[in-house]
Amino acid sequence: MNREEKLRETILQASLNEILDLTEELHPVDLLEVLQEYEEDQKALLEKFPDEYIAMVIDEAELDEKFILLSLFPSKQKQEIISEMSSDELADMLGNIDEDTQSRILEGMEEEHREEIEELLSFSPETAGGIMATEFVSVKETMTIDETLKFLRDIAPNAETPYYIYVLDDQDVLKGIVPIRAILTSLPDVLLKDVMLENVATIPASMDQEDVSNIFQKYGYMAMPVVDEEQVMLGIITVDDIMEVLSDEHTEDMYRLAGLDEEEEIDGSVLDSIRSRLPWLLVNLVTAILASATVSLFDATISKVVALAVFMPLVTGMGGNAGTQTLTLIIRGIALGEIDYENKKEILRKEFLVGVLHGAALGLIVAILGGLWEGNAVFGLVIGVAMFLNMVIAALSGFFIPLLLKKMGIDPALASAVFVTTMTDVLGFFFFLGFATLMLTYLL
Amino acid sequence: MNREEKLRETILQASLNEILDLTEELHPVDLLEVLQEYEEDQKALLEKFPDEYIAMVIDEAELDEKFILLSLFPSKQKQEIISEMSSDELADMLGNIDEDTQSRILEGMEEEHREEIEELLSFSPETAGGIMATEFVSVKETMTIDETLKFLRDIAPNAETPYYIYVLDDQDVLKGIVPIRAILTSLPDVLLKDVMLENVATIPASMDQEDVSNIFQKYGYMAMPVVDEEQVMLGIITVDDIMEVLSDEHTEDMYRLAGLDEEEEIDGSVLDSIRSRLPWLLVNLVTAILASATVSLFDATISKVVALAVFMPLVTGMGGNAGTQTLTLIIRGIALGEIDYENKKEILRKEFLVGVLHGAALGLIVAILGGLWEGNAVFGLVIGVAMFLNMVIAALSGFFIPLLLKKMGIDPALASAVFVTTMTDVLGFFFFLGFATLMLTYLL
Repeated sequence: MNREEKLRETILQASLNEILDLTEELHPVDLLEVLQEYEEDQKALLEKFPDEYIAMVIDEAELDEKFILLSLFPSKQKQEIISEMSSDELADMLGNIDEDTQSRILEGMEEEHREEIEELLSFSPETAGGIMATEFVSVKETMTIDETLKFLRDIAPNAETPYYIYVLDDQDVLKGIVPIRAILTSLPDVLLKDVMLENVATIPASMDQEDVSNIFQKYGYMAMPVVDEEQVMLGIITVDDIMEVLSDEHTEDMYRLAGLDEEEEIDGSVLDSIRSRLPWLLVNLVTAILASATVSLFDATISKVVALAVFMPLVTGMGGNAGTQTLTLIIRGIALGEIDYENKKEILRKEFLVGVLHGAALGLIVAILGGLWEGNAVFGLVIGVAMFLNMVIAALSGFFIPLLLKKMGIDPALASAVFVTTMTDVLGFFFFLGFATLMLTYLL
Repeated sequence: MNREEKLRETILQASLNEILDLTEELHPVDLLEVLQEYEEDQKALLEKFPDEYIAMVIDEAELDEKFILLSLFPSKQKQEIISEMSSDELADMLGNIDEDTQSRILEGMEEEHREEIEELLSFSPETAGGIMATEFVSVKETMTIDETLKFLRDIAPNAETPYYIYVLDDQDVLKGIVPIRAILTSLPDVLLKDVMLENVATIPASMDQEDVSNIFQKYGYMAMPVVDEEQVMLGIITVDDIMEVLSDEHTEDMYRLAGLDEEEEIDGSVLDSIRSRLPWLLVNLVTAILASATVSLFDATISKVVALAVFMPLVTGMGGNAGTQTLTLIIRGIALGEIDYENKKEILRKEFLVGVLHGAALGLIVAILGGLWEGNAVFGLVIGVAMFLNMVIAALSGFFIPLLLKKMGIDPALASAVFVTTMTDVLGFFFFLGFATLMLTYLL
């Protein structure tokens, strides 16, 4: 019996008190795995738990699963569960279902809660406003440590775990933060204004989530406040939201580099996969046709020296690989913010030199191979020079194309690879076959 | 005047009290940026700060920078700074310098501290033991909330921010955890054993850091305890350590897919770049030679129908791209743990069907193009069938090769791309030129 099977048995046979004990020890993610494995028992299993715990399970579920799980329950219980869900997860769920159902659910909510969620829904999902939660603990600067502790005892069970306490004025403008450790380690009659940190780093609600995650990575914060233009505090983003953003952005980078839509899912439908990939393959078809057209310029030459066709895969294959190396380094460097105005020239100089040296080494190898193959030193010279030039082209296009795209406001991961391989293919063939045409008398 | 320039001025002119105020507001990462921009002022700037703050700056510095910054100070102050550094950062720094200097520094440390750091150094850097810190707050289960609060007031300033309090028995075996919120929200005379959570999820010290980061991502923990085989608590890993691991693993995946060594740095030396990339280019040269050798089998055919050489880039270019799409999806799916025994067959069926449908669509397009180009329907048929077959080969090799490598214990990101393109190149040429040879009488 595996772990999920055992857990399923335990839950189905548990008394109310055993279930209540279980909610203390069982992570909602683990229950979620049981639900995924035993779809037919989802209702029977979830029903045994209190609404608050069901809400935690739905909070942890994947975006597509949330509403499916919620729909197992009758309307009245649905609203109870919703009132216990995290605001950010609830808004994500509601943003992902049809508008009629969304309005019906919003109408069933208490006014204050509904307004909060409607505000969250008004932000674009990939911005700070779109990922923040509205559960945070706010206090006034005139409170003492002891008053704050009492206040926390009253309200904390309804808020996301408080890592910081936010000090707001009467207009909800953020004045400072009080770290939990300051509350734990200060004497009871100290005023919050004497322990709070001012000049708090804040995130504007409109900031793109990728920039938000860069700030979290740079400073190592556990949570950051999100504010509007007037510094009015709207919500918080915690580091676990950022872990998800990081993972999503990673998938996006890898997928875009490979020509996949970032929405494609590994267990999605055939139709979705084709919709994700065929457009990109068609773009590549056009660039491949450009490469073929370049070759066709020289078909008279090839018909006289067939060995040129034999060596064609060498020139372009190697050019594509070397270009991808430089390209990947630059794209990752852009994403990590490692490239700035000053080191750009240094990097270009290095990449150019690497291209020249790779070109010299690989050019020499293929010159010898080609010369021996054809028993003709000039043939070796032609393929060697072509390889050399293609390595330099690869280095330069791998460097300039992503930076140029970035400057034009296009995600370099999205379009660089196709441009770089077009350069190395088209120019690679052009130099190889063009040089061969010039030297034709020596090749026959 | 930019931000770093202004900060440099402020610091150099600040009085002791102004500096002390600044340490409250200035994030060490921001000072680090000033130090990176004004290398000549590093000593003058850092000297103005108290040892504790200098330690925080060195904690935040990149691995290579840490010891350089520390070396700005005389021996005695060095040891003071070291005693204030985070144990995990200190161990990383010491693991990165020559053994003589390491021993000298260790000898200068207080015994207890030295033993802690020597234990950290004994773990491999990419395991849980290698990334954990030894600063955590531990208590006994017989303490009350009020006693715990008093205890925290005494010791917390020396520990990393406590998110959890760990309850240990007399042998340092982990019995449970007390969330900070329980301390804040429980009444003063409650015993810890009544609020502590038992069955705590722990990390074995030998666990690979990638597995550790998967657990953090799955459960959304802020910190987790690291234990030895007897459940004796050794240290904690916090989520900010995990963010670094995630970013490093992401770089590693992208670099390996592109044929770069994961140690390569964007602003490294030319020699390091060549050492990172040339071996991979040489592996690719061998596979490109295989492709060329395949073409050479059919040079008699090409010499009669030069248009075959013109269309060669189409077949292999498209095969490589389609193969990379499937490959990337599978590699990312493996990394995210999205592929299991059950959905494997589903995914294969889908990828195969996608390959067949892409092959049909693209095969039809190039058949028409090829037929028109040569004014020969059979030529169109040959290129169309070759394209169709290559799309199916791309789908199958993009699916099986990474899974096979994974089974053999090889990182699929490291070696898949070269095998997949070899398959699509070699088999692509073989089918295209082979079929053309069979149909040769109709192509002339």
